[in-house]
Amino acid sequence: MARPGGRSARVQEAVHAAVRELEAEQGREALTVPAVAARAGVTPSTIYRRWGDLQELLSDVAVERLRPEEAPADHGSLHADLSAWARHFLDEMASPSGRAYIRDALLGDPDGANAGQCSAYAADQVEVILARATERGEEVPGVEAVMDLVVAPMMYRILFRPGRLTAAYADHLVQTALTSVAPPR
Amino acid sequence: MARPGGRSARVQEAVHAAVRELEAEQGREALTVPAVAARAGVTPSTIYRRWGDLQELLSDVAVERLRPEEAPADHGSLHADLSAWARHFLDEMASPSGRAYIRDALLGDPDGANAGQCSAYAADQVEVILARATERGEEVPGVEAVMDLVVAPMMYRILFRPGRLTAAYADHLVQTALTSVAPPR
Repeated sequence: MARPGGRSARVQEAVHAAVRELEAEQGREALTVPAVAARAGVTPSTIYRRWGDLQELLSDVAVERLRPEEAPADHGSLHADLSAWARHFLDEMASPSGRAYIRDALLGDPDGANAGQCSAYAADQVEVILARATERGEEVPGVEAVMDLVVAPMMYRILFRPGRLTAAYADHLVQTALTSVAPPR
Repeated sequence: MARPGGRSARVQEAVHAAVRELEAEQGREALTVPAVAARAGVTPSTIYRRWGDLQELLSDVAVERLRPEEAPADHGSLHADLSAWARHFLDEMASPSGRAYIRDALLGDPDGANAGQCSAYAADQVEVILARATERGEEVPGVEAVMDLVVAPMMYRILFRPGRLTAAYADHLVQTALTSVAPPR
């Protein structure tokens, strides 16, 4: 495809930046393809050719914003690491901007690639936590079990079932996931 | 609001039917507000006034299609009832039309009411199964635990994380939910 750092990457960066700036300055309603193109210094047809329509562009921008900026912090144990990460994830995703990004990511994503990328970001973070715990000699659940028991319930409730979205809820989910590997005796 | 069976209900039924018919006959691309209005025998402004735009209308139609048609079957035990229901739910929701309805329901739903209704349909079905098991004297998990452990992982994977969507996966989730109330000794 395009060379990294080439024209294609520059266009993408300029267009993504234009979306973020226009939205911050003038709000969501200001986001039209002609307005984004003018701000980015490209023609509208460049945007239509590359993204199809505004919704697909907003989906790409949303996924980029949902990309975690750093590796999960090391708090010394699997339980502490996973709880801290789950609380942080819930905070971000359940916030008004998090909800808007999830929604945008899903909406302009006919083939599911962007939704899959969101899930991959979360799974990558979980894997870092699990690998670190394994190195410590802790017993760990599988990454897919953590996706089912911790990530899925939070995302499901954010999208479909309001309420319950507290730090205590995140802790409860982590507890369930960890109990599934080491059932109480 | 509107009287049941009154003009408002008749308009809704006619417009919903027009969407279903046009989509079946001419495909998704044929769905425009003027075309739906003409088929339903109402004016486009009736549709705009009531639904705002096409996406909100499609969201309402999708939720209506996601409404379960019957109570979950009684197979004689909680495990059998919940497994059969989970397999059926997964089949429907992961099918191409199920995915399209979930997507439509989410997209034209700025206030989350339609997404909440989808979740309420599932919770109602789960409650019927749990109440029946309680009457039999079985130990049962709470409805919110079943939403977290069975419904959420299926819906999360349908939307965000492809793969795994098999009957064996549904069975595995049900097993986990039931083990959470009665841990293996």
